[in-house]
Amino acid sequence: MKRIDLNADLGEGYGPWRMGDDAALFRVVTSANVACGGHAGDPDVMRATVRLARSHNVTVGAHPGYADRTGFGRRIIPMSGDEITAMVAAQIGSLIGVAALEGVDVRYVKAHGALANLAADDAPTAEAVVRAIRAVSKDLAILAISGTTLEDVARAEGAEVYLEVFADRAYRDDGRLVSRCEAGAMITDPDAAAERLLTFLESGEMPTHAGRTIPLAAHSICVHGDSPEAVAMASRVRSTLEAAEITVATFIG
Amino acid sequence: MKRIDLNADLGEGYGPWRMGDDAALFRVVTSANVACGGHAGDPDVMRATVRLARSHNVTVGAHPGYADRTGFGRRIIPMSGDEITAMVAAQIGSLIGVAALEGVDVRYVKAHGALANLAADDAPTAEAVVRAIRAVSKDLAILAISGTTLEDVARAEGAEVYLEVFADRAYRDDGRLVSRCEAGAMITDPDAAAERLLTFLESGEMPTHAGRTIPLAAHSICVHGDSPEAVAMASRVRSTLEAAEITVATFIG
Amino acid sequence: MKRIDLNADLGEGYGPWRMGDDAALFRVVTSANVACGGHAGDPDVMRATVRLARSHNVTVGAHPGYADRTGFGRRIIPMSGDEITAMVAAQIGSLIGVAALEGVDVRYVKAHGALANLAADDAPTAEAVVRAIRAVSKDLAILAISGTTLEDVARAEGAEVYLEVFADRAYRDDGRLVSRCEAGAMITDPDAAAERLLTFLESGEMPTHAGRTIPLAAHSICVHGDSPEAVAMASRVRSTLEAAEITVATFIG
Amino acid sequence: MKRIDLNADLGEGYGPWRMGDDAALFRVVTSANVACGGHAGDPDVMRATVRLARSHNVTVGAHPGYADRTGFGRRIIPMSGDEITAMVAAQIGSLIGVAALEGVDVRYVKAHGALANLAADDAPTAEAVVRAIRAVSKDLAILAISGTTLEDVARAEGAEVYLEVFADRAYRDDGRLVSRCEAGAMITDPDAAAERLLTFLESGEMPTHAGRTIPLAAHSICVHGDSPEAVAMASRVRSTLEAAEITVATFIG
Repeated sequence: MKRIDLNADLGEGYGPWRMGDDAALFRVVTSANVACGGHAGDPDVMRATVRLARSHNVTVGAHPGYADRTGFGRRIIPMSGDEITAMVAAQIGSLIGVAALEGVDVRYVKAHGALANLAADDAPTAEAVVRAIRAVSKDLAILAISGTTLEDVARAEGAEVYLEVFADRAYRDDGRLVSRCEAGAMITDPDAAAERLLTFLESGEMPTHAGRTIPLAAHSICVHGDSPEAVAMASRVRSTLEAAEITVATFIG
Repeated sequence: MKRIDLNADLGEGYGPWRMGDDAALFRVVTSANVACGGHAGDPDVMRATVRLARSHNVTVGAHPGYADRTGFGRRIIPMSGDEITAMVAAQIGSLIGVAALEGVDVRYVKAHGALANLAADDAPTAEAVVRAIRAVSKDLAILAISGTTLEDVARAEGAEVYLEVFADRAYRDDGRLVSRCEAGAMITDPDAAAERLLTFLESGEMPTHAGRTIPLAAHSICVHGDSPEAVAMASRVRSTLEAAEITVATFIG
Repeated sequence: MKRIDLNADLGEGYGPWRMGDDAALFRVVTSANVACGGHAGDPDVMRATVRLARSHNVTVGAHPGYADRTGFGRRIIPMSGDEITAMVAAQIGSLIGVAALEGVDVRYVKAHGALANLAADDAPTAEAVVRAIRAVSKDLAILAISGTTLEDVARAEGAEVYLEVFADRAYRDDGRLVSRCEAGAMITDPDAAAERLLTFLESGEMPTHAGRTIPLAAHSICVHGDSPEAVAMASRVRSTLEAAEITVATFIG
Repeated sequence: MKRIDLNADLGEGYGPWRMGDDAALFRVVTSANVACGGHAGDPDVMRATVRLARSHNVTVGAHPGYADRTGFGRRIIPMSGDEITAMVAAQIGSLIGVAALEGVDVRYVKAHGALANLAADDAPTAEAVVRAIRAVSKDLAILAISGTTLEDVARAEGAEVYLEVFADRAYRDDGRLVSRCEAGAMITDPDAAAERLLTFLESGEMPTHAGRTIPLAAHSICVHGDSPEAVAMASRVRSTLEAAEITVATFIG
């Protein structure tokens, strides 16, 4: 029987501000990438998010990013590998500390935004991230984009690695994402997104932008919740998969 | 054979800024209260401080405070108990994460500044702080000022509690500190400070401001490093105690 | 012919986050209290807000508050009068600098949140705020709550003072607001709010919570935009006043 | 009679932290580049710095930089030209607001760190900076490094432009600075630094690293105060110039 996880970025508020509709998204996902004070999140937001995750039986992962709230972690801040390692370790530790208040274990780590993009291609950055994760706990899994340098580095370091595909992004024939600058990069129709993922899960082959299909490994589908349309797509994906008797469940344990 | 710990606040820099002479102080103390990103400290400063502690064989404690760099944690920020708990848990977790990069365990927690002052007298604040510490790890000891509400609350919660006295503060006959607003509150002469502590350690009775002596429990002496005079006093205290064959060693383990 | 201004807090976003529906509110108000980097706002948010104000022909005021994003300026941060003065001057100056990019003058100042509450009752705080405003520019008017210490201090310093009443808050017979802790403090029905204000503007007497009426001076009505309900109330107030041939226009110039 | 200004970065503290010995440096310089809350500085530090400048009869300039305290403005933060313009305008405005509390006018602007480096070579960045300065006030002069893109852009926009040379940096034959990565980039001997500048001021030709001399325009010499050695060099430069009857005075008015 086929099985897949649905993950999303959650807890991306700060102080009085909120980002997206976390309450709605928690009804859809099975894994939550929880912001841990770098690009977003503060101790109260983290705690409320972990509590929601627990009540929805959703697995909690840490979602570290550049400590750049103004840029929401989407800008590359020039940092050495050691600086990245310390930053990531501090953020993961911070979420572990807060999650402990709710009796919840942080089970995996997924890098955010510009840090994730850099770690996908740049080995020193990937190594800096993986070094932090491994030092904090050998029990932390790593959620990476399929086929990236981060995946390779994580495996080489002996980490438990899970792979994700994107619900709303078109793929090229080489397995990489179509750049956001190009037409057709984003899949905006919920039904089209859901059908494409169903095809992928049933065949193991992802339809590409060019009309071919490619083999792709995936334990999780990344969905978004930053707009009502995004939440609608996430819901549509879940209901389509469940109607096809695919089990939607966390990749952990 | 008598034995005492010397503790100090360390790693209170931030970004390009440094506070006091950590290198000198690490040669004196046996326990380091390491700022963890609230009133001071950032991941790089934390890591460098933990590394110094390891190389000097100094025990590492977390030193959480109000998340108020501008006020250096010396202002009471109005917060609920739950907000304090989440803040303290996040800060301790952050240091634990960074310390893991150096293979160092965080062994105890000492609250900083206005948070420590409030926790010394106010039961809900003390409970909020202790709740965070206990949730993060049952193995974390608590370093408290002798005779405070924090000591009582920590004991009631089953925590391992250690008590400190101050090298440079005069005591009243009721065991509390003479207010900084009063004349004679601060002991500024290194020899006088060292002699008073020696008397205390040999007799178990602390000389008071009024000329009496009172029984006081202590596992550690708090020294400072924020000025050359403070470092000189700390050094003088240590050499005086060692000359009297008192063992200066961490209270842990 | 009767005339009144409608003011609201605008530009209370930060980095990627937004607060309320500014676009909708700019269609209703005639004066905008623009956050200037203390409790909310950053240079980009400030500029976008000033640009919106210009395009809607809305007067721009500075809205300084405690430099406490986490608490959104709603917590009293312990500060000396001099510290408050420097903070307020820096924030106003910051908005003036950004507004100059759009060729817009900042015309008045309204304190935010906990700073406004304190300045309403505490003379040293009111003096600290007014001192900053007067130093930055003698041309800056002050928007104060009618009957407060801030009003008195501002007048004593020779400032141009305008007074506001609240669309959604009940008044006591002594002219003060009913505390938010008491039942009936908030007026939630848009029609009731609009009718009460119409009565007040036509008679000069504000209906109180206890069912009496009291004389109250007002140049402006404060409305909110932090929820769809709040925007609906603000719109309802404006349309009701305009239907009664009351001119809704800025109090400036 | 020959005349030159001495400028330095001042007020680079934040909250409880201080950078360098401002008190000593204010006895040497005639122009102060005052941090305005981006890379360093807060309202209290700004005010204290402006007050010191006034009491030493030192001209005040704004010293905007990337809003990156952790990196002290030395990292290039990816920003659009509009974002840079808004940031610079906000920072200059902030200092103008605080300086007004001391009755002091901000007379010029000098960019800091990575922003200055980028503006020296990159026309869009230089234009973004100059646009902010010109919008805030046509009366603000610009202090630029001789021969840079910033100088050209500032002149093209009609700004009053002053040029600086560095007391402690070697020059190449093309008039640019020897890179810090190369041997001999820094001049560390105070006497050598003072003599080189005296030669330059008396001849109008700057001795280069390669042993030649090149014509260079300068209204000001940039000195540093971040270490006791730096302050000693700055003092030595001043006393050498004064002994040679060169007037050390601000370039303004």
